[in-house]
Amino acid sequence: MVKISMLSTGEEVLHGDIVDTNASWLSELFFEQGFALDYRSTVGDQLEELTTEIIALSQRSDVVIVNGGLGPTSDDLSSLAAAQAAGVALELNQEWLATITEYFSRIGRPMADSNAKQAMLPQGAIVIDNPVGTACGFSIELNGALVLFTPGVPFEFKKMVRDEILPTLKSRFPDVERLVCNKIYTFGLGESGIADTLSSLDIPEAFSLGYRSYMPFIEVKVFSPYSDSKIETVLTAITEQLKDNVLGINQPLIEVLGDGLMDKQWQLSALEQVTGGELARQMYQSESTQQSFIQSVVDNQAEPLTELTDALLLANEYRLDTQSDIVLANFKLDDESFALALSSKLGNYVQNVTFKRTYPIKAQQVLITTVLLDMLRRHINDESPFVEFGHFERLSVIERKQ
Amino acid sequence: MVKISMLSTGEEVLHGDIVDTNASWLSELFFEQGFALDYRSTVGDQLEELTTEIIALSQRSDVVIVNGGLGPTSDDLSSLAAAQAAGVALELNQEWLATITEYFSRIGRPMADSNAKQAMLPQGAIVIDNPVGTACGFSIELNGALVLFTPGVPFEFKKMVRDEILPTLKSRFPDVERLVCNKIYTFGLGESGIADTLSSLDIPEAFSLGYRSYMPFIEVKVFSPYSDSKIETVLTAITEQLKDNVLGINQPLIEVLGDGLMDKQWQLSALEQVTGGELARQMYQSESTQQSFIQSVVDNQAEPLTELTDALLLANEYRLDTQSDIVLANFKLDDESFALALSSKLGNYVQNVTFKRTYPIKAQQVLITTVLLDMLRRHINDESPFVEFGHFERLSVIERKQ
Repeated sequence: MVKISMLSTGEEVLHGDIVDTNASWLSELFFEQGFALDYRSTVGDQLEELTTEIIALSQRSDVVIVNGGLGPTSDDLSSLAAAQAAGVALELNQEWLATITEYFSRIGRPMADSNAKQAMLPQGAIVIDNPVGTACGFSIELNGALVLFTPGVPFEFKKMVRDEILPTLKSRFPDVERLVCNKIYTFGLGESGIADTLSSLDIPEAFSLGYRSYMPFIEVKVFSPYSDSKIETVLTAITEQLKDNVLGINQPLIEVLGDGLMDKQWQLSALEQVTGGELARQMYQSESTQQSFIQSVVDNQAEPLTELTDALLLANEYRLDTQSDIVLANFKLDDESFALALSSKLGNYVQNVTFKRTYPIKAQQVLITTVLLDMLRRHINDESPFVEFGHFERLSVIERKQ
Repeated sequence: MVKISMLSTGEEVLHGDIVDTNASWLSELFFEQGFALDYRSTVGDQLEELTTEIIALSQRSDVVIVNGGLGPTSDDLSSLAAAQAAGVALELNQEWLATITEYFSRIGRPMADSNAKQAMLPQGAIVIDNPVGTACGFSIELNGALVLFTPGVPFEFKKMVRDEILPTLKSRFPDVERLVCNKIYTFGLGESGIADTLSSLDIPEAFSLGYRSYMPFIEVKVFSPYSDSKIETVLTAITEQLKDNVLGINQPLIEVLGDGLMDKQWQLSALEQVTGGELARQMYQSESTQQSFIQSVVDNQAEPLTELTDALLLANEYRLDTQSDIVLANFKLDDESFALALSSKLGNYVQNVTFKRTYPIKAQQVLITTVLLDMLRRHINDESPFVEFGHFERLSVIERKQ
């Protein structure tokens, strides 16, 4: 097994000014590619600390990814630390100097002296291209390890890792078997609920499951060897077990809906008396939902409905007013229960639900939005829009086909 | 200086399934309290790796915070690793066993055998109370360092750090001077822009500045000794220098507005033809803005206005229709420019703005929302609602006092 570690650098990371999302992003990507990390560390911008840590990681690992500290300012010390760790001098890399000189002349701005510093690399270092910034990456060999230096700007870092570093690792370690990760987006079950539900399944040994919680979804990650013939069978078994709790496979719900609405050429509007604009906000998450979205009225001070049937009438009326194909609507019925309605030319549907426990208002809005979006998903699939989810108790439903 | 390190444990952290927000949260809090971290590392759930790392950190540090691995399942190995590192056995801690036995009897559920495992601590360990969970924290002394073990559940972790660990550190290291951190929320300047603007100021040596970017704001953090007499002077000097770019001091803009709207007893509605529900969403962020919010119409397919004055008319009309005191409204004028309007009984105001560079649609919505919220803030303060921000070029304004 290839031993891989990552060193995050910088006071802003070490002191919590920024959350180290580069580390979690790299860790997840590498794991999926078969290059699981076995160690990560973080140090500040002190030359001795950096140098010591680079040496220590090179001794314990086959590959070390160093992130940050390649900028133009005096507290960016990764190149100097690399040179010190390797016992060589820094030298001006003519190739990278030419690249950034050309870059500044192209954008018509003078190059600061501090940018020239970014072309100072340890002797013998190999440049890693950065097509989107002035900090080049580079690699050195140290104590038998390949040590790769990468910029801290997330956009530059991610591009360099994807386009340059992963291919390098794959060709250096051709025997590492890439995993494939299929993602099942679930709603309405907790992690332990999902694990219990799946415990009866006979998952092949080469497969493993992981969970990741994205409020309000829990993503079930199914890792397997890249070209395993059983992948389809396992995914089908899992989705059959989780049934109505599966809202998307390898595609988040909102994208599933975007495709569905585009397919049907349906235009959607929303009446939001509970969800405070959350439905509208979600419709902006992909181009396809955005194009299928007409309008939402977010009403914060509306009176509760007296009758559940009012929800059907209001949703239907609003659909006709706005010339929408679909209306999703939510209303208060009283302090504890809510009417969730869907109106289309095929029919009008409403359910009266209440939460099983207390949630903060923001969570309530997201949970109700998710149920409504799932009603839409099921309607697009010609299924009944009413299913049970763990967060809610369903008190009653009304269905009126047109 | 006290040397402090943190060890995050668990495959889910190491492989990027979760972002290590416990680490950034602790790092920020400790920094502000004068206990800056000097090293962080992450390992998975392997006993040997954990043991080795606990020993290594105890050798380099005065204080080590270990996070995670105290749960009831077999992959939770931190207690065992602690015992192995210290060369002692695990023993059943009667005090903690009694605590969790009592806890389960209180909630009326049987205690699983696996929970009893959570009371197995290294001989000589001192319990750290966890009033909100079944995993107790504990501390051991190792190689002259105080090593503190904490649960991974963020809510339990944060409570334990605040209520137990910080007071312990303060009494163990009474000479560490606590910093105070005042936060200035700015908008419309980049980090380097702010640094340039502030470079002319004579900041006392005991003070230091930090920046934290929360899109769309950049928070300027002013660290100083806890009871320094110059704090007010320095804060005033900084806010005077940054002028209209300061949208809040020690309080985010939305909370400033919540207080302002409550004070004036103004009720607000919004017309969103560009911001896709972002204004409505933000009004839900605090109780005070929520209570002052009537409704928003989020319109995605409205035609661009032909005249800037139409924005004034529409905002004013909508204000009267909804019986609101304030309307914030945004409209497309053409593909490149937008009308941002505020209507109140004091007057109607609109500005025609265009972005100086290309932003993704989500960022456009947030930036425009922020400008409108700042127009409201300034209106509440009886100031002209029009100021310049770095992201925008302002093409024209119309102001009609009533």
